[in-house]
Formats: sequence, C-alpha cells, structure tokens
Amino acid sequence: MKEETSNMEKKALAYFQSGGPTAVINSSLYGVIAEAFKHEEIGGVYGSIHGVEGLIDDCLVDLRKEDLEQIELLKQTPGAALGSTRKKLPAVSDPLFGKIIETIKKRNIGYLLVNGGNDTMDTCYRLHSFFQSEGMDVSVIGIPKTIDNDLVMTDHCPGYASAARHVMNFVKMAVVDGAAYPKGKVVLVEIMGRNAGWLTASSDLLKEDERPDLIYLPESDFSLEGFLNDVKRVYEKKGYAVVALSEGLNLPRKNAGGTDSFGHSSLEGVSIHLAEEIKGRLGIGVRTMELSLPQRADPILASKTDIEEAIVLGKEAVKALLKGESGKMVALRRLSSDPYRTEFFLAPVEEVANKEKFFPKEWILSSERMADAFRDYLRPLVKTSTHVRYDEAGVFLTARLRLERVK
Amino acid sequence: MKEETSNMEKKALAYFQSGGPTAVINSSLYGVIAEAFKHEEIGGVYGSIHGVEGLIDDCLVDLRKEDLEQIELLKQTPGAALGSTRKKLPAVSDPLFGKIIETIKKRNIGYLLVNGGNDTMDTCYRLHSFFQSEGMDVSVIGIPKTIDNDLVMTDHCPGYASAARHVMNFVKMAVVDGAAYPKGKVVLVEIMGRNAGWLTASSDLLKEDERPDLIYLPESDFSLEGFLNDVKRVYEKKGYAVVALSEGLNLPRKNAGGTDSFGHSSLEGVSIHLAEEIKGRLGIGVRTMELSLPQRADPILASKTDIEEAIVLGKEAVKALLKGESGKMVALRRLSSDPYRTEFFLAPVEEVANKEKFFPKEWILSSERMADAFRDYLRPLVKTSTHVRYDEAGVFLTARLRLERVK
Repeated sequence: MKEETSNMEKKALAYFQSGGPTAVINSSLYGVIAEAFKHEEIGGVYGSIHGVEGLIDDCLVDLRKEDLEQIELLKQTPGAALGSTRKKLPAVSDPLFGKIIETIKKRNIGYLLVNGGNDTMDTCYRLHSFFQSEGMDVSVIGIPKTIDNDLVMTDHCPGYASAARHVMNFVKMAVVDGAAYPKGKVVLVEIMGRNAGWLTASSDLLKEDERPDLIYLPESDFSLEGFLNDVKRVYEKKGYAVVALSEGLNLPRKNAGGTDSFGHSSLEGVSIHLAEEIKGRLGIGVRTMELSLPQRADPILASKTDIEEAIVLGKEAVKALLKGESGKMVALRRLSSDPYRTEFFLAPVEEVANKEKFFPKEWILSSERMADAFRDYLRPLVKTSTHVRYDEAGVFLTARLRLERVK
Repeated sequence: MKEETSNMEKKALAYFQSGGPTAVINSSLYGVIAEAFKHEEIGGVYGSIHGVEGLIDDCLVDLRKEDLEQIELLKQTPGAALGSTRKKLPAVSDPLFGKIIETIKKRNIGYLLVNGGNDTMDTCYRLHSFFQSEGMDVSVIGIPKTIDNDLVMTDHCPGYASAARHVMNFVKMAVVDGAAYPKGKVVLVEIMGRNAGWLTASSDLLKEDERPDLIYLPESDFSLEGFLNDVKRVYEKKGYAVVALSEGLNLPRKNAGGTDSFGHSSLEGVSIHLAEEIKGRLGIGVRTMELSLPQRADPILASKTDIEEAIVLGKEAVKALLKGESGKMVALRRLSSDPYRTEFFLAPVEEVANKEKFFPKEWILSSERMADAFRDYLRPLVKTSTHVRYDEAGVFLTARLRLERVK
C-alpha cells in the first residue's frame, strides 16, 4: 500500500537562502521547486524564511501553494525571494540548535538545501555534521551563489556571470559617455569584490575601444604613485580615462579606526579616495561611478547561461538529496570553453566552506590587461542575453509570492 | 536644367550635438540623417564634431559616407556620436564668429541643426540672430534633449523618458534587494537633476511595494530634521528604507569654498552627507547608491517612445529648415495621456533658451507621494521597451561611424 503513505510519513524538503542576493539566486529556487514538485516521495516543499532563522523560529512557507506563473517569474526576480540572513551559526552547545531540532522534527524534514556563498557553505557543513552527530536522518546539500566568484572547487559560481555582464555593459556606458568631450574627465568605476577581483576583471573582455584604460583588482600590485602615473599617462594621450577599480583594492590606510589616512569615513569607497588624489595631485577633473547594489540585483542584464546553470544546480541538488547524498555542494566542472560544455558534480562542502578562490596573479599581465586565458574563461559565461518581461510602466516584473506560512 | 545644379550650388546641412549626452540624442541624429538623405536639394549632410567647435575649426564629417547598418545602430548608441562640447558662445565681437562664417561659406552651409538642452538653445538663438544680422542665408533649428526634462514650451524632452525608465528600474532593484534581510539598511539612491526634480520624481510611478519610501526633489521643502524623522519612522516600521534623492537637493551648506558645513569636498554627493547624518544621529546602517552616468547613457532600458520621439523631432527639424524656418525649436504638445497622443510644433527658441521648467510644487504632495497628475504624465512616456542588439560578449552594440572628414 505504498501509495497510501501519508504526507507526514514522507520526509519534507526545506530550502533556504543566505548571504547577499544575486540576480539568479531565485533561479536556483526555481530549479529546486521545479524538481521537487516532480517527486511525490517528498512530503512537503518548504521555504525557510530568512535563511537558517526560519528553521530556528519554525517560520516555513509552503512552496506548493505558490502560483506557477509567479514561480516562473522567479527567473527574473533579484533579491532573495524567501529573505536572506547574515547570521552565522554559533557553537553546537548553543540553545538554537535545540530549536532547529524542534522544527526539523515537527515538520518531518529529511532534506535540507542551503543556497549561498562561503559563509553559507560553512552553515551547510555544520548542519550536516550536527545532524550526523545527533543521529538524525537529515541530508544537507549546498547550492552555490555569489557574484564574487570566489568559491573553490566549482569552475564558477551562479551569480557571477550576470554580475559580470552588468559590469561589462556599465563600464562600456562610462567609456562611450566619456568619449563625448574633447577634454573629458577621469571616470573611476568602483566595482564589487572585497577580496577577489573576478568581477572587476570582467571589464577586460570589452572590445578595444570600449574597455577601461586601467584595471585594478585586490590581487593587483597597487601603489598610489604607480596609479597616478598610469592615470596621467592615459589622460595625456586620450583626453579622458576610464578606470575599473575593485572596492577591495589594497589602499594604504594608516588609521585603525573608522577613518583612514585620508580622514574619510567607511561610507566612502576607494573611488572617492583616489578621486581626491587625482584631483589634488594631477589637477584633472574626476567623476566616480560606484556600480553598487545593481551588480547583484540587475535581472535585465542577467546572463541566460547563468540563469540556466542556477536552475540546473537547484535541480541537481534535489536529485542529490533524494539519492541520499549529504554534506556536499553541487558544482560545475568545465569540459570545454569553445564550444562551452560543463558537467555537474558534487564537491565535499567542508572543502568549500570558508575558503576563497582569488583571481590568479598570473592572469594580471599589467594594469591594462588580463591574460587571454581569463577572457576565454569568461566569454561563454556572459554572452547570452535573456528576454525580460516588463509591467505596464516599463519596469521589470518580479515574482509575487504568497509565502503562506506552514501552520 | 534644375537636375544639373551642382552640389556646391545646393545649400548643405550641418548638425551638431552639445551639452551632456542622453540615451537618445543619437536617435535624433538618426532622424536627421534619415530625413536629410531623402532630400536631393540638400547639398551635403555634415556632422560638426564637438558641437559648435567643429564649425569654428572647420571640422566637419560627411554623414553620407556612413554605412547604413551603423546608422541604424545610432538608435541604441549612448554618448554623443559626433562628440559634444560644453562651450558657450562669447559676444559676437569675438573672432571665433569670423571663423564660423569662414566655415559656413567654405562649405556652403544653409541649414544648421543644434541638438541640446537649455544652454544649447541659447547657442541656437545666438547663431540664428547672428546670421540674420550678417544678412547670411543660414537657417538654424534647435532639437531638444535633456534627461532633466527642464526645457520650457515642450511637453517633455527627448532623453527624459529613457533616463526615468532607468531610474525606475534601478530604484526597484534597490527596493527588492533591500527587502532581503530582517534588519536591513537605509539605502539612499542619488539621482541626477541639479535644479529640477523630474528624474527623481519618476520613481513615484513604481508600484506600492516596489517604490521608494521617501522622495526628495530640489523643489521639495527640505529640512534635515524632517528628513531624519521621516527616515526613522519608515525604518522603525519596515526594518529598512529606500530613499530617492535628487543630487541638487537643497542641503544646508555653510561654507562658500570647496567644502561644505560637513567638511566634505565637492566630489561627495548629497547621499554621502545624509548617510553620515543618519549613521551618526540615528545609528542606522546606511548604503548610498549613486545612479551616476548610466542615467544618461543606458540604451538597454531606453524607452521606445523616447527613441521614436527623438527620431521624429530630428526629422521634423530637417523639414522645418527646408520650409525656411529659423530660430525655432522643434517641440511636442500633448493632446492626450490615455491614449497617448502628441503633436509636433515649432517653439520660438528665444523663449526656451536659458529658462528652466521646474517640477510643479503642487505635484509634491508629501515626502512620500507625488500627485496622480504626475504619474498620468509620466506613464505613457516610459512604458515601452526596446529590443537591444548585443555583441558576441553579451554587450550592447553601438554604431561605429567612419567620421570621414570633409576635405
């Protein structure tokens, strides 16, 4: 009488999002839903609101109650549709682990998916280990996402390609705009990436007369004198200059407090600091352009390949859970760049957690150029565009979920 | 023997771009080219490089030498394809007027089109008056463009709708991203508009849960205390807040020099100043997001209506010249908002030059809301999207002009 197994006897699946959103994290949610809905052996398909906090507070929503049309729109919805969290798990002795166990038992959760970056993979690993040590039958799989592209093991991370495509298009806008005047300005484009320069480096893929004149990553050998010399040289030759800067650029900072050697607060990024140096020491007009939040929230320039891979990884994560896998992260291995081919695999999540993949030093040829190998790596990820649906005011549509709480 | 009139006997047409670029100024160039190419009575169709500077220095390019495929791409090319200038004309006694006459005579120019904002309409009026006073047979027509939407006489300006659509979509990104965390930040979105708040106000058209919580224009009654109270109230209710701010917001500034009462340099916009007030006095986390250059340079979110109107005005300007009109600006009069209907007319350019159309005070209902009348005005301008062509790296294509100089 297998068919009559009640829902309460079947193990439920819970999914959560954690860390900074990307343009495609909700595409992974879409993939999870699309796959999970096909499997009757899954008791309930739940979303945990605000990451692990939903598990702690028993705040789950029933994803089977959502309209299919809205689920479809997840593919162009930025932000974290289920809410995110910055919470890091404390030691297992902490009472919140008891609360997690309560929710897991009450909802009969046997499958858990966590979607996020390095910190989230740490959460993934610790939950997996905790459930194992408690002898609980709960499998945990991680789904990667980060615009920083700094997770190890996987060839690249969902979220990176869309952010890179946003950066490339917006740097081109700065270049095209900057070329308008006979005597222009230096435009400093500040790009996300606190430690890894993958996103800033993406501007290197732009064509010869559309690209930044200078590119500086956190991994670059940076000196203020060298920087000012570079800017002066380009400006004198062209009459304007566009510079791509990582927000995490290694600037000389003397003070340990809230201000740095320039006397600025933490609210001001590297571009403002360097703009004042250029203005003060070279006497050239400067404009700063911080690409800011839209790098992780622009669905219009999202890469179709990125969306598709985010969906596939969501689906593969569900399949892995159903096969009994746990403590793994779904990952991509590249087989070929041209034609672009990848295969999916499971990486041990403890090898991913809390590690960072930096931009290879050997790919930084100069302050003007990255290696061909990097452009070959990036090109297939960003080249495809997606068809965006707009509302009656010309604004991109987003999924309107019911988020009906499980009672 | 009319057909045998040589090109040198036919009057040539020259066109130039001036002031800050918009996403659609090159669509007006497209319209000029499309119309001018149809008229054999026009001797040459020239572009003046870097605005009026091309006339002064006899730096003209032959637009008839351009590839049609590249001309087509002007419709999605931001920046100023022929180069722009910030030059304002001096008194007519200045020797550069003699140089302009030289070029006009040498190239047999009888038709002149100037494409720009308030300052450019001043140039338009002064060139028109100068040619008249010199008894020269040169007609001058202005084509409006500005993202600020601050030209009088015309219902709206080409460039505004595309910039507004960019602003709306990017504010929605900030709202969607900001909603991810249980305890979020205050996001201050800084929007272009030194004196007029049309662009910032456009964010008011967003749907209820996608719109900024607070909107401040240069025309708003602004006080720091009121602002901080507003932010505090919204943040306490929602856990985050998104604020749309005009860059030209009327902040209290005490010093006349390069720094203001906060001790900041001119490189830092209002958002950074207000962010420090929020951080310091309310103790709430803040993020600034300056929309910067892409507001005037984003072809991807350009409004189709805007592109089409920019083209039509370019065409109508050529027709007006051929009818012998001079000293006029092509303009739009709205007949109806729903369905959207406009008609074209010629406005006396001296009534446009150096004037500014501010956002109507009566349309500012509060720091949270604009009047329905404004949203009815804006809606038809922004609602249509355009099909963008991308290159093989996923980056929007732009026109590659030959710019072959007239010898």
